Amino acid sequence: MNIELISIGDEIISGHTIDTNSAYIASKLAEINLWVAYKSAVGDDLKKMEEVIYQALKRADLVITTGGLGPTDDDITKRAIVKVFKRNLVFQEDVLDDIRKRYEARGIKMPSINQNQALLPQGAIYLPNKIGSAVGIVIIDEGKIFVALPGVPREVETITDEELIPFLESRIRQGYIKMIKIRTHGIIESALAEKILPATKLPESVHLAYLPSFSGVDLRIVSYGATPEMANAPAENLAKQIREAIGEYIYNEGNETLEMIVGKLLRERKQKLATAESCTAGLLAGKITSIPGSSDYFERGVITYSNRSKVELLGVPEQVIEEFGAVSAETAEKMAVGIRERAGVDYGAAITGIAGPDGGTSEKPVGLIFIAVASARGVKSKRLMLGRDREMNRMRSVYSALDLIRRTILESD
Amino acid sequence: MNIELISIGDEIISGHTIDTNSAYIASKLAEINLWVAYKSAVGDDLKKMEEVIYQALKRADLVITTGGLGPTDDDITKRAIVKVFKRNLVFQEDVLDDIRKRYEARGIKMPSINQNQALLPQGAIYLPNKIGSAVGIVIIDEGKIFVALPGVPREVETITDEELIPFLESRIRQGYIKMIKIRTHGIIESALAEKILPATKLPESVHLAYLPSFSGVDLRIVSYGATPEMANAPAENLAKQIREAIGEYIYNEGNETLEMIVGKLLRERKQKLATAESCTAGLLAGKITSIPGSSDYFERGVITYSNRSKVELLGVPEQVIEEFGAVSAETAEKMAVGIRERAGVDYGAAITGIAGPDGGTSEKPVGLIFIAVASARGVKSKRLMLGRDREMNRMRSVYSALDLIRRTILESD
Repeated sequence: MNIELISIGDEIISGHTIDTNSAYIASKLAEINLWVAYKSAVGDDLKKMEEVIYQALKRADLVITTGGLGPTDDDITKRAIVKVFKRNLVFQEDVLDDIRKRYEARGIKMPSINQNQALLPQGAIYLPNKIGSAVGIVIIDEGKIFVALPGVPREVETITDEELIPFLESRIRQGYIKMIKIRTHGIIESALAEKILPATKLPESVHLAYLPSFSGVDLRIVSYGATPEMANAPAENLAKQIREAIGEYIYNEGNETLEMIVGKLLRERKQKLATAESCTAGLLAGKITSIPGSSDYFERGVITYSNRSKVELLGVPEQVIEEFGAVSAETAEKMAVGIRERAGVDYGAAITGIAGPDGGTSEKPVGLIFIAVASARGVKSKRLMLGRDREMNRMRSVYSALDLIRRTILESD
Repeated sequence: MNIELISIGDEIISGHTIDTNSAYIASKLAEINLWVAYKSAVGDDLKKMEEVIYQALKRADLVITTGGLGPTDDDITKRAIVKVFKRNLVFQEDVLDDIRKRYEARGIKMPSINQNQALLPQGAIYLPNKIGSAVGIVIIDEGKIFVALPGVPREVETITDEELIPFLESRIRQGYIKMIKIRTHGIIESALAEKILPATKLPESVHLAYLPSFSGVDLRIVSYGATPEMANAPAENLAKQIREAIGEYIYNEGNETLEMIVGKLLRERKQKLATAESCTAGLLAGKITSIPGSSDYFERGVITYSNRSKVELLGVPEQVIEEFGAVSAETAEKMAVGIRERAGVDYGAAITGIAGPDGGTSEKPVGLIFIAVASARGVKSKRLMLGRDREMNRMRSVYSALDLIRRTILESD
């Protein structure tokens, strides 16, 4: 089965907006074992849009467009659809009721321009949109499935998750799918593969993907079979082999991030955390507090960029900085202990390093970072040797610190 | 002239990598008045790749691909090119010399696998790649221009800026282009348009685009004419009208960001800055220190998430927090004054607010943020009323603080 995604809109074509919708949809389709073959994009030009949709329907069995479904005149995707499928737009009362009810629930009278949103191509099925007024449209024609979604990324995500994927699963899935996601930190992709490959057997019906990011490498197991059992058993079996081979690097099986897990562990234990950052300069605290409600467990942070501030705000002894340098395990540990004591919290986390691209020496090169975490049981530190890219070094340090915090909390139990 | 961009690679098609290359190239082409009509993407599948390139050459006059030019077996773009154009791969000695020299300059012997990189389709022109081993390839055939670039974003950016755009300008530009970028902060797109439209006259040869982001709204003027003068004069004239209409919101005409400008102003004046953040929790300091060398002017920061830390680390009087609340102009001002004094620096910047999505009251709703900047001349604060999205509120607050710092430095001269 060939699948094509089409992104519609001048803002995509001009390079002003980066298209994230097609990546989102493709990754969700992959989770149910549907693999995209082509992607296209076209501007707000009726003739070119018809041409692109027409061609997609020739080479693909499932075509999904995003964008151009709004109520105003510059949104012309529906006009292209009715031309391509030679259908009329008809008024669907149930869609209008749906939209009107959503406005009423928010205490707002529906603007009359939204009546347009209830005009759908004849014979179309609609996919409700919980957070916007443009519904998704499905047309089934000559064995092909055509889907049009709005362009707002949050709406695309909601409709894809709640409507499109269940619809496609019921319509076209051949058999059953089991997906397991295993998230790792602290080991690179090639080293993971070196440990996993000899320790596992991969049946043909199972895919294993390595997905690296700043926070580590995620493993995605996708298994399919004619029955639930035939899909589940090989996936569970592979997951078990992987857990045995690389268990020490796994921090989650699911969609939880390191900052979510750290927050949950602290909340469960009614414990608090404070941070002291040098080269990451607030990005660790910023990541921890990206979780709503984090004020329950995040007490404070300091950004000690100058040596003077390390002494004044954290009590790092001047002679430690002189003897070992501001970028050293010793300084990192003193920073972690200092913030823990001064904030009066359970855990103190610290980062100091040379983010680059300049400022390194042969002894302390760019990319050398130390992280440390202090707890009631003492303090420990870790040395990282990263690359030359400033922002990448800073983000990777943040995630390494989160993982060390996580491990320290678990060890303190 | 129709232009099509093609992104190549399984990682793009699967949604694992978000394609930023095509947006970069499209925006650079737009600067020389070349507008993309179609975008496509295809995986590492030779037959589909040929089909997509073939079709692009039918409907477009300029086709640019990215990806699949590496030296290993899974990079097959060149194989697709020679099939489509019915040409052989020939060995180009000058390309090999180029690649070898670059390795030598780094003191590394060229891996022999890179010899493949000197095999180019017969008759191809090559675009040097300063930072990688895969050169860009240009084929001119039956009046069409075909360009293949590697897939690594930094290489795409470098080759596009230094090779592709000059090449295209000399080859196909019809007339001259003048571009002026005007960056604004503190006013929304529709309000900008309301001020600009009545105050300006837009000749047909001039485009004016509004480009909103977290940091504000950028205005892009693109003007073209048969002579440099015919392109320049209308653009300069429009820029002058815009400056008169909205001058107070302009912070830069060019590519400098607010954090770059704040850094430059501080460096020129040999002054220093410190920050005190509540709801943004380090993101302001993180943004300021994203600039290499920022340790010259950024001294320290504190993240006072708890009320206790605001008292302890900044000397905010408890009765101020009690009387006005932690989210108030009064607290923000005390925070800014406190960090300025304690760090012993020229400027202290503070942010406090309710980032959301929860935690608001009718008096202090989600999205209410106060920023303040203290200097030798005193302290001033600003009230922002933003939306419900936590990360958006935090990033917009950071940029508002940067703009207030910028204004305060300039006023202190």
